[in-house]
Amino acid sequence: MRIILAGAGRVAGHLAEALQENGHAVVGVVSRTPQHAQRLAEKTGAVWGTFSSFTLPTADVVIYAVSDQALEEVITAIPPGRMLALHTAGSIPMDIFKGKAKNYGVLYPLQTFTEGRQIDFREIPLCIEANTPENKERLQALASSLSRRVIPAGSEQRLTLHLAAVLVNNFVNHLFVLADGLLREKELPFDLLQPLMEETVAKALAMGPEKAQTGPAARNDENVIKKHLELLSCSPGMQKIYRLLTESIQSNTHPQKK
Amino acid sequence: MRIILAGAGRVAGHLAEALQENGHAVVGVVSRTPQHAQRLAEKTGAVWGTFSSFTLPTADVVIYAVSDQALEEVITAIPPGRMLALHTAGSIPMDIFKGKAKNYGVLYPLQTFTEGRQIDFREIPLCIEANTPENKERLQALASSLSRRVIPAGSEQRLTLHLAAVLVNNFVNHLFVLADGLLREKELPFDLLQPLMEETVAKALAMGPEKAQTGPAARNDENVIKKHLELLSCSPGMQKIYRLLTESIQSNTHPQKK
Repeated sequence: MRIILAGAGRVAGHLAEALQENGHAVVGVVSRTPQHAQRLAEKTGAVWGTFSSFTLPTADVVIYAVSDQALEEVITAIPPGRMLALHTAGSIPMDIFKGKAKNYGVLYPLQTFTEGRQIDFREIPLCIEANTPENKERLQALASSLSRRVIPAGSEQRLTLHLAAVLVNNFVNHLFVLADGLLREKELPFDLLQPLMEETVAKALAMGPEKAQTGPAARNDENVIKKHLELLSCSPGMQKIYRLLTESIQSNTHPQKK
Repeated sequence: MRIILAGAGRVAGHLAEALQENGHAVVGVVSRTPQHAQRLAEKTGAVWGTFSSFTLPTADVVIYAVSDQALEEVITAIPPGRMLALHTAGSIPMDIFKGKAKNYGVLYPLQTFTEGRQIDFREIPLCIEANTPENKERLQALASSLSRRVIPAGSEQRLTLHLAAVLVNNFVNHLFVLADGLLREKELPFDLLQPLMEETVAKALAMGPEKAQTGPAARNDENVIKKHLELLSCSPGMQKIYRLLTESIQSNTHPQKK
């Protein structure tokens, strides 16, 4: 398919690469920032422009890969006409296109993208939704050409996936930040935790997270919990997080005690 | 070295295997439960017994790999004499051996052990501490034969490592449990999150967790945060966790806003 990318950030960059690798043509790149548009367009051999000055080449699909805040404005600036219009946002309903496009849908990749980090796009779950059966079929064909995991998901399912992604990515990473800070204070390197971090993920995936739950909270070991809270006595913020997550584990593991 | 294991649980089981593989002899296994002692002893060709009836074979080292609560009682039941006495607990000071042993220390493996799950023991950081330079040397030799990462760590450093392990293992796994529950309600499979979970760990290790922090909290996206809190309106417990972790990320990312 011939594709226009509206947006030239991390999601657009990773998408562009996956599209080219799988035989699609990225024919146009539009961005607020000329340098960003140009840089990505040069990689794909596309024409480029900014939201205020751009003559659209002929294409089948336009993918709006911009921030949630900018999305509405960019759809208005780059009207999709008869092209299949897609956005890539986890928490924006498909209906943002209503009245602005005839053919539309959502292509939400469940992954965190980082400039310079290679990711195997074929493994990324792509959540899709479209406004008609015909458009769903076209979107399904496009998504299946990029990834082996394509999941039909309505706007509420997608919002739930986005929330789950916040838990397992943003919140988990924040716990890593806190652990890193604790180790730094004692002059211990963060990568001591590497085997444990990797095993935590592997174990939860292999046996399911409920069965994988261990630790002082799960076994109600008040002695250890007390020692940890004492160690955190100078960090009331972390103490609060420790208490809340410990209580949450306890009420999950020993529901009768709640 | 000739080694006696006091305890026949998960830590003892994984240790026994690593010891045998690296040329040591597990000559005795003692446990409260005869069946457990027997089962592990048969794997290693050791003699076995219970805490109440056991004649110690000659050995260089006795490793007490039992629960924190049982540790003191087991040391008394199986007195180490002149053997090097080690425990494996993250949150128990080395001094628990004071007056009960002449030669003692701690061998704390920073990993979560699960029956039936293979783990590469050479990659597990082993935190060591001993009561004399001579014992430290013996312990260093033993630990280095099992793992490529041996870290001298005093009792307070070890307690900090244990706390950090609770954050990146127990608490992270609990976030997986909560995400799993959210997806189940919407009939979505947990393993959709696999690539994201794996990338979260890989990214935090590659670039450091502070730089890896993204998401609605880090970019102060109040729209998305509001949508997520609404989605959690029937789960006040999860709402509370979402709020607290969001605030904690915000005060880390935008400290001036605190």
